[in-house]
Amino acid sequence: MNFMSDNVVGAAPEILAALAAANEGAQPSYGGDPLTARVTRDLAELFECDVTVFPVATGTAANALALSVLTPPYGAVYCHDEAHVQVDECGAPELMSGGAKLVPLAGPHGKLDAMALKAALDKGGAGVVHHVQPAALTLTQTTESGTVYTPDEVMALTEVARAHKLRVHMDGARFANAVASLACAPADITWRAGVDVLSFGATKNGALAAEAVIFFDKALADSFAYRRKRAGHLFSKMRFLSAQLDAYLTDGLWLRLATHANAMATRLAQGLDALPGVGLRSPVQANEVFAVMPEPMIAGLEAAGFHFYRWDGACIRLVTAWNTDPAHVDTFVAAARGLAGIV
Amino acid sequence: MNFMSDNVVGAAPEILAALAAANEGAQPSYGGDPLTARVTRDLAELFECDVTVFPVATGTAANALALSVLTPPYGAVYCHDEAHVQVDECGAPELMSGGAKLVPLAGPHGKLDAMALKAALDKGGAGVVHHVQPAALTLTQTTESGTVYTPDEVMALTEVARAHKLRVHMDGARFANAVASLACAPADITWRAGVDVLSFGATKNGALAAEAVIFFDKALADSFAYRRKRAGHLFSKMRFLSAQLDAYLTDGLWLRLATHANAMATRLAQGLDALPGVGLRSPVQANEVFAVMPEPMIAGLEAAGFHFYRWDGACIRLVTAWNTDPAHVDTFVAAARGLAGIV
Amino acid sequence: MNFMSDNVVGAAPEILAALAAANEGAQPSYGGDPLTARVTRDLAELFECDVTVFPVATGTAANALALSVLTPPYGAVYCHDEAHVQVDECGAPELMSGGAKLVPLAGPHGKLDAMALKAALDKGGAGVVHHVQPAALTLTQTTESGTVYTPDEVMALTEVARAHKLRVHMDGARFANAVASLACAPADITWRAGVDVLSFGATKNGALAAEAVIFFDKALADSFAYRRKRAGHLFSKMRFLSAQLDAYLTDGLWLRLATHANAMATRLAQGLDALPGVGLRSPVQANEVFAVMPEPMIAGLEAAGFHFYRWDGACIRLVTAWNTDPAHVDTFVAAARGLAGIV
Amino acid sequence: MNFMSDNVVGAAPEILAALAAANEGAQPSYGGDPLTARVTRDLAELFECDVTVFPVATGTAANALALSVLTPPYGAVYCHDEAHVQVDECGAPELMSGGAKLVPLAGPHGKLDAMALKAALDKGGAGVVHHVQPAALTLTQTTESGTVYTPDEVMALTEVARAHKLRVHMDGARFANAVASLACAPADITWRAGVDVLSFGATKNGALAAEAVIFFDKALADSFAYRRKRAGHLFSKMRFLSAQLDAYLTDGLWLRLATHANAMATRLAQGLDALPGVGLRSPVQANEVFAVMPEPMIAGLEAAGFHFYRWDGACIRLVTAWNTDPAHVDTFVAAARGLAGIV
Repeated sequence: MNFMSDNVVGAAPEILAALAAANEGAQPSYGGDPLTARVTRDLAELFECDVTVFPVATGTAANALALSVLTPPYGAVYCHDEAHVQVDECGAPELMSGGAKLVPLAGPHGKLDAMALKAALDKGGAGVVHHVQPAALTLTQTTESGTVYTPDEVMALTEVARAHKLRVHMDGARFANAVASLACAPADITWRAGVDVLSFGATKNGALAAEAVIFFDKALADSFAYRRKRAGHLFSKMRFLSAQLDAYLTDGLWLRLATHANAMATRLAQGLDALPGVGLRSPVQANEVFAVMPEPMIAGLEAAGFHFYRWDGACIRLVTAWNTDPAHVDTFVAAARGLAGIV
Repeated sequence: MNFMSDNVVGAAPEILAALAAANEGAQPSYGGDPLTARVTRDLAELFECDVTVFPVATGTAANALALSVLTPPYGAVYCHDEAHVQVDECGAPELMSGGAKLVPLAGPHGKLDAMALKAALDKGGAGVVHHVQPAALTLTQTTESGTVYTPDEVMALTEVARAHKLRVHMDGARFANAVASLACAPADITWRAGVDVLSFGATKNGALAAEAVIFFDKALADSFAYRRKRAGHLFSKMRFLSAQLDAYLTDGLWLRLATHANAMATRLAQGLDALPGVGLRSPVQANEVFAVMPEPMIAGLEAAGFHFYRWDGACIRLVTAWNTDPAHVDTFVAAARGLAGIV
Repeated sequence: MNFMSDNVVGAAPEILAALAAANEGAQPSYGGDPLTARVTRDLAELFECDVTVFPVATGTAANALALSVLTPPYGAVYCHDEAHVQVDECGAPELMSGGAKLVPLAGPHGKLDAMALKAALDKGGAGVVHHVQPAALTLTQTTESGTVYTPDEVMALTEVARAHKLRVHMDGARFANAVASLACAPADITWRAGVDVLSFGATKNGALAAEAVIFFDKALADSFAYRRKRAGHLFSKMRFLSAQLDAYLTDGLWLRLATHANAMATRLAQGLDALPGVGLRSPVQANEVFAVMPEPMIAGLEAAGFHFYRWDGACIRLVTAWNTDPAHVDTFVAAARGLAGIV
Repeated sequence: MNFMSDNVVGAAPEILAALAAANEGAQPSYGGDPLTARVTRDLAELFECDVTVFPVATGTAANALALSVLTPPYGAVYCHDEAHVQVDECGAPELMSGGAKLVPLAGPHGKLDAMALKAALDKGGAGVVHHVQPAALTLTQTTESGTVYTPDEVMALTEVARAHKLRVHMDGARFANAVASLACAPADITWRAGVDVLSFGATKNGALAAEAVIFFDKALADSFAYRRKRAGHLFSKMRFLSAQLDAYLTDGLWLRLATHANAMATRLAQGLDALPGVGLRSPVQANEVFAVMPEPMIAGLEAAGFHFYRWDGACIRLVTAWNTDPAHVDTFVAAARGLAGIV
């Protein structure tokens, strides 16, 4: 039973089936196919606005390319200090932007705080030639701590950004989990709340490898096609990316899968939180559980064959997925209960 | 009927089936899965040597990342002036290498000439601080003109490169077509002929999106994993790239598909070459036909609904694929014959 | 006697004296000093228009930084195939632009031809995502062959560039020599002829190390200050760059020095051209002489202790400078005459 | 009276005189001149070891180019969070390295702490493909807080770095002030203490614009010449950089000038520290005084025409230079005393 990450599981059957369906016949390459056009329509409808959409295959590509249009090479991109772009992309934003600097800010439970952002920007050196120039803010939704920004929280941050002339990107590798958690419209935590560009993730939530970079401010998208191409992220048989995204967006599949994953995390969290000596490091608002537990319990769970990530110290990370079996969750909780000495 | 490119067609059924098969169960992400390990074994066997393998999803990524380990940012990469890296990658090698310069050299039928390469390198400025430093040679096999380097031709070029301390990359987006054409061992036109790194293409020959960067000199591979990651080309659900490559390599599928594509191009070329006013611009040695024909014939074929690429002037490019229907070839030739006034 | 280059000689006494004069007292650093402001006024007057000016210390910095604001990282910069930016800057434009590609075009006597430029741009791939995007034209005035573009020639080229939406840079490392040769107003071969940005050189013509990047289109200058800083080309004690430029521009020193250098080259060319077996490879229009002569004559001149550059084959380059002694010219010609067997 | 920075003052007369002396005659360009060779000998003698030396004109160039050979583009460079490379170079290290990431660490009085460095490196992600790879440590000596690392402190930090396979750079923009403060051999705080490359500053201490990048590990220097050239930092008339450095190194001028500047800072600090309501934020160990004082006193000093930098909050920075007049120091202290209400 594997709670290591939501990328250890396979793809949803609907998405695999869509690949097979998309395989028929000759189609224009590089995105000239009808499925790719349909994905843009799907997303315009979902987000209730006009959008420019670029499918790519990885979240790192989506993030780094999106940021590359928001910052000059001498720019500064403000982010949470645990953000994927800062910690887990081996410098992809720096590569794609030509050397921009990420400015990491601390904040509890993976969230940036508007006042802390304002304080950082106020001394950010805008207009002073010695300093990298504040250019963009990037938010992670769902955060790296498994928490979710409310629409008001997003808005508070983007207002600070806007006041300092920053553009705003959202890393939505787990965007679906956030929407499922908030039960809001996708627009409510994106363009209506001041986000310019979204990395809309599907890979972690049932696709094989598909993300969409969605521009709400279309003027920003001008250079993206060239940047995607020169980064090697323009797929010749684009239909196979678009087919995944189209199936993902059809009949609410994306939200259904995320809702399940979230429910499994909640079930897991509730089971663990009830145990003596076990605590949750952050509120469980999506599909990740950060649990603090005694080392013997951690070691015991590992020995029992469960897979998860040792986050730091006594904290482990458990991630549920679109296809997590409730029985697996219950087995895990039961094992933990056993290790806690509860019969 | 679409002869626009070998990337307008879908994927081979064996490869689609492999995706479905690979979907079962949880697997380590980022390449820690057994299928990825198997691809390395497959390729070691195919190339009869120890190899280090990195799956990626596009040919541009494969080429640009491979070159990035062969050249410093102040280096020069020698290539044919029609090479994909020079003409069709929107500057990807420059991005990935941090600004290296491609040095394009002319040569008939898409091929570099060893003497011309030597002449260029002799005045290449090695060791002189004002000039970019000769660092790598990249060959395209099958070439952009649909021709194929023989093993001796590759060797002649790599010997010149070696004598000038250059490393050698091969862009094998249509590598299978070259092997099918030459009826040689894959090793004969790669490491045995002096190639250090190969972009081994599968996408154009029946995969959805899968290429393998193969290092024959393993010492060169040290930084590749980091470079791939920071370029956004490390797939979390790597099994889906590896599944494609594994199926491609199983039971000689790769060679069977390429052999068919080549045969279709030969059939097409023979049919066209027999027509008055029609000529072949380059020998047809793989799956591409460059045919020179009167403008009315070109326009007539377009009007008849055939898709192909107007290369330049009176020359069109016709590309056959792993699944090209012989009947389509014959229909095309018949249409051309009709336009030539032959009843 | 050294005709190797105009950078083997020292600085003009007026410029050295200006350094000493500028040394007094405390001054704001980083360009906030009065001398730097004066240089902008000097240049506005000289060019008869409003300008934005950035002093730097080397021609490579001036060129590469100027180009970096004219091209996106996925852009193409058209240049002569002998241009300094292409041949002699070890990839500086690629570094500063973040990976743009130089597109070298051939042309006799170091000059680009408007028709050839148009032909190249017509197939330059503008708007096609696979290709680097035509972004800028750079002209070298005085050219690398010691010739000079007339105002009409510059205009013809910039009109082609403009029609294809390219911006225009001029590498004026030997700009003064061109103006001295043409006896025109500096504006006539720059903004009046369609040039957006000029690298205005002083180093080769009597300064220690000083160039000015001059923007005629001020809107283009927005990012330059940041780009200069991050390239390490913002001098803290800027007064010492500005003092050189100010002295250079005072009382027509710049033109006087260049006029002398040009006259010396003409004298040299006339002397050599009269000799049997000696020819001029390009018209001598500024301060460089490209002379073709028999190998024994070349070797004999070297043996006699003269310094010059073996350009290629039987062609040598002789460069005169602001302080070239006419007697040295005459001695050189006499030596050549002797080696030609003329008593 | 200007205490804004040590770069608001001019150059020492010995250095200006050296420029004039170096001006005579023709000299090989680009560093082939005898003066440049002499600078290497000067520095080898001063540092008591074999060195490879590259003159450049700015501290930012020296630092960013030095770091570019110590880190791959996917590398991490550990530095103090107030370091010039992190705060005041507008992203120059990112540009020159091709996108490496600076990792800022806090530490009192501008100094890194060996234990904090170790803690950061222990979780630095070495060998894990998702993370930028720890590659280099850069120390600032004299620090940005005007303090000085002892040889033991340097050694403690480089030992941690070495244990984690990092290379070590020292930003010595105020290196002379540190040596003057410590009364040690230059080698004691550089190669003998584990430093691989030093940015040896002269500009702030009496030169016009001259720094030397000194490699103690010569193998690291291989690519530097190319990197310097492509960054536009190879001076054609190199003699004028070298003349500054040579004069700076002759007869102990460098140390004499720094000793004076330090003495002036000490005098200033002692005067201020004796005043009620005034405190020193950091120990004054070189030529910078960080003084905390009441806002009315700050405003009063400004109103009296003194120039200095408002650092943050109630802290101002006063910098003394090689030519600071003791009378100016005394006048400043007297003015502060007056504002403190002491008659």
